[in-house]
Amino acid sequence: MLTVAIDVMSGDRAAHERLTGSLRVLRDDSDLRLLLVGQPEQIRPEVEQLPSALGGRVEVICASQVIAMDETPRAAVRRGRDSSMRIAVNLVKEGRAAACVSAGNTGALTAISHFVLKTVANVERAAIMSAIPSARGHAHMLDLGANTGATPLQLCQFARMGSIVARDLYEVQRPRVGLLNIGEEDIKGHETVQAAHALLTREPVDYVGFVEGDAIFTGEVDVVVTDGFTGNVALKTMEGLARLIAARARREFQASARAMFAAWIARPALRRLAAALDPRRYNGACMVGLRGIVVKSHGRADATAFARAVELAAHAARGHMTAHVAQAFEPQGVFS
Amino acid sequence: MLTVAIDVMSGDRAAHERLTGSLRVLRDDSDLRLLLVGQPEQIRPEVEQLPSALGGRVEVICASQVIAMDETPRAAVRRGRDSSMRIAVNLVKEGRAAACVSAGNTGALTAISHFVLKTVANVERAAIMSAIPSARGHAHMLDLGANTGATPLQLCQFARMGSIVARDLYEVQRPRVGLLNIGEEDIKGHETVQAAHALLTREPVDYVGFVEGDAIFTGEVDVVVTDGFTGNVALKTMEGLARLIAARARREFQASARAMFAAWIARPALRRLAAALDPRRYNGACMVGLRGIVVKSHGRADATAFARAVELAAHAARGHMTAHVAQAFEPQGVFS
Repeated sequence: MLTVAIDVMSGDRAAHERLTGSLRVLRDDSDLRLLLVGQPEQIRPEVEQLPSALGGRVEVICASQVIAMDETPRAAVRRGRDSSMRIAVNLVKEGRAAACVSAGNTGALTAISHFVLKTVANVERAAIMSAIPSARGHAHMLDLGANTGATPLQLCQFARMGSIVARDLYEVQRPRVGLLNIGEEDIKGHETVQAAHALLTREPVDYVGFVEGDAIFTGEVDVVVTDGFTGNVALKTMEGLARLIAARARREFQASARAMFAAWIARPALRRLAAALDPRRYNGACMVGLRGIVVKSHGRADATAFARAVELAAHAARGHMTAHVAQAFEPQGVFS
Repeated sequence: MLTVAIDVMSGDRAAHERLTGSLRVLRDDSDLRLLLVGQPEQIRPEVEQLPSALGGRVEVICASQVIAMDETPRAAVRRGRDSSMRIAVNLVKEGRAAACVSAGNTGALTAISHFVLKTVANVERAAIMSAIPSARGHAHMLDLGANTGATPLQLCQFARMGSIVARDLYEVQRPRVGLLNIGEEDIKGHETVQAAHALLTREPVDYVGFVEGDAIFTGEVDVVVTDGFTGNVALKTMEGLARLIAARARREFQASARAMFAAWIARPALRRLAAALDPRRYNGACMVGLRGIVVKSHGRADATAFARAVELAAHAARGHMTAHVAQAFEPQGVFS
């Protein structure tokens, strides 16, 4: 039985959405147990309605605080000791949960996770990693915003960690790794990517060199490495463009009787297309490099989206993500 | 009569594409003259086939060199004196052309443009600016890759220049300016965006604060400011995602007889959608902040895409872009 801790309280939407999403996963995954962290008066009514077979796999953990979406990372660590986010991460630290999920403030979650769990030895900073749909399946991209920048060494570590996770959790045999830059030629880019490029040729990864933003989608690489600022902007840009295109398509197919008739005939195709474009399908990103599994959900995640993040946490825990990363960075087996 | 210089030789495709695109604009714009810069033996045969009414508005300017797509900016400035790119920019400097267009190496074009034309007084660095389709028309985004980074002061200058160009060339009454960041809260982001944020509140622009990547498309701002590294990655990410979605849509509509029938009925709608998604429609970006107009075309631009870049050059010149920017930065009227 796998146990996942859920920060029910943090996020832009009502706790109800995250609760519903979590319980949906519980229903589908009979080998899962959930620790629901938050205000009992908000959580209990929904849990009490569960059939007893499900209710037996749920525990409500009381948290009196919620970390605000605009709280600074420092204040979150200092003042958020009784927050749902902190307690969810603590449960991983204490070994009571194999992973935790939060839709809260990224900066706070990153700071608390680093403070409580610490990084795997020799890893300077953890990075947020997610699968992005590409022409040949997925690209695994990191850092998507755990940090506001990255040193050359950190970029190299992201490359190694990304490569390990792509191989051990997503069955990519020999992950090809690209470093995001504003040109593919060796001379392009600022000092940081230049220095990282030089380091990466000596790393134990299948490094293909610099790639541009469009390479995320072409399938030419399996792992796309960048700093948290650029990665987060790229991710949000994708979300915005996908939404714009979906809205335009909807408008076009409602513009005339003819288009509406066509849309009616084509609805299986359109439905598949809409699903492929739906950012909720890709919700959830692992914070890799920590001595424990923390999954970051989009703040605006609804029940459907949040369920994906919970599934991702279970997948990462069952795939022993932390141990795989630790084995590579702690050759002496410091990590238990 | 407006004269635009064309760097026919630089770019990933054959010179023929850029020549065809340029001559297409010449045909549609009877008040345009073109200076076609490059190897006469490649250009003349096509020019000689033009009807005399058009041929009279074309001049071929000989250039013996071509700047390679992987040439360093420094080498391009030093060794590229007889290159088509350099000569095209020189023609603007000499006043023989009101603007120039090149699909060459961005780094080389930026370096040569700064070296030959110089920036408007008080402007540290020029930025590449382009219109990006949004839910309410367009967002004007800069820097898209003229520079590999930006200081806080440079980001502020980009904001002012972007605001001026949006207002004076694109009729946006009161352009709302956003600074790209990894969160909207004041505390988010690295030191550079934090410092720029503080400066921008004192600038003569309608600054709305930090925006995330999705704000490019929502219409909540008219001008999106970022450094050239992040901007270029975001731009290439958009291109890649738009192509991926277009490919998926094509596949879905070819997957069954039913979908193909629907596509046949819906073809006006699908054609409009495909056109809206076609990155060629948005080709061409102005380098703003220089004492002359330089338009950067995508390296892979075909005739259709290159024509848009030529049209943009004519639009910027007719809108007196340089003078508008100079008036704001050189209040004493240093710029003639």
